[in-house]
Amino acid sequence: MKKSLGANPLVYPTPVWVIGTYNPDGSANVMTAAWGGICCSKPPCLAVSLREATQTHGNILRNKSFTVNIVTEQFIPEADYFGISTGKNTDKFADTGLSVEKSSLVDAPMIKEFPLNLECRLKDVVEVGLHTQFIGEIIDVKAMESILGEQNVPDVDLLRPVVFSPVVRKYHLLGETIGRAFHIGKQFRKKENK
Amino acid sequence: MKKSLGANPLVYPTPVWVIGTYNPDGSANVMTAAWGGICCSKPPCLAVSLREATQTHGNILRNKSFTVNIVTEQFIPEADYFGISTGKNTDKFADTGLSVEKSSLVDAPMIKEFPLNLECRLKDVVEVGLHTQFIGEIIDVKAMESILGEQNVPDVDLLRPVVFSPVVRKYHLLGETIGRAFHIGKQFRKKENK
Repeated sequence: MKKSLGANPLVYPTPVWVIGTYNPDGSANVMTAAWGGICCSKPPCLAVSLREATQTHGNILRNKSFTVNIVTEQFIPEADYFGISTGKNTDKFADTGLSVEKSSLVDAPMIKEFPLNLECRLKDVVEVGLHTQFIGEIIDVKAMESILGEQNVPDVDLLRPVVFSPVVRKYHLLGETIGRAFHIGKQFRKKENK
Repeated sequence: MKKSLGANPLVYPTPVWVIGTYNPDGSANVMTAAWGGICCSKPPCLAVSLREATQTHGNILRNKSFTVNIVTEQFIPEADYFGISTGKNTDKFADTGLSVEKSSLVDAPMIKEFPLNLECRLKDVVEVGLHTQFIGEIIDVKAMESILGEQNVPDVDLLRPVVFSPVVRKYHLLGETIGRAFHIGKQFRKKENK
């Protein structure tokens, strides 16, 4: 017999991304978000949900662009700060000592020190409730060579991305790699289909 | 100088969820999806994206309901099988020996052996491209008592949720818990704001 936990956003794993946008005065802003994921392969798109009260919400609507900067182990304190402070009255880059990297493709800033950045062009806006969902087409992905593995794709053991647990509000590292997807389930195929 | 990796869905972490729906004949179907995330706190909603070619796509549109069954370490081979087989000509429950658990709240089946299940009612449908995004309102969350920790919320060390890496197609475990969110970033606050 299972226990009912009520209507709560208890899914695992949940990402930790820093969203980069430009303010009306052209300064760079960043905020941390955990409500998001990939939402399409072709064109490659991701979705991130933000409250209307955030500075980033207005910035995305105005500039039709944002970046997703993947939070890695090294930058957890900075990313956490980006989630608990507001760009309305602080310069989050100055406070943390991180640097802006200009994108040549979209009208949004990346974080130079973060090893993996996605440049997104706003594709769709969905009002869900307290949160507005922004669907961004991924125009390009920029990566430090130091985190690339086979196939020139990020190696998670080098990238060390962080995972968030909702409600209990904790950050976790990724652990062991435990299997090849689209492969280890073949054991259940009936003989005639193998 | 960073390297351009092109327009690819390279975000981390990405979840592994098994989506439960009923087929037109009333039998239970499941498929594995990795394109999803939470998209709203109030009402609590999640989004999952599926290709139109899948059996689950039609099932969700017809029944206006689906469940999300969180993949945990113990069930990686089963979940992988649910992603590489089709419910159009196989009974995925029979093939893997897993059991259907009926939901009393939504018109969709849960996997009894999976320790954490979310019951969702279809709220919105967004055509993104190759994938259709289904936004589901989380009506309830069901959990085995054995995976609950503080605040009656799943403890990830007990749940052992699995993470997926796109493109390189690998599964990973969660690792160490490394910090309290909304807390460890306070070190960057200026003294007058602390």
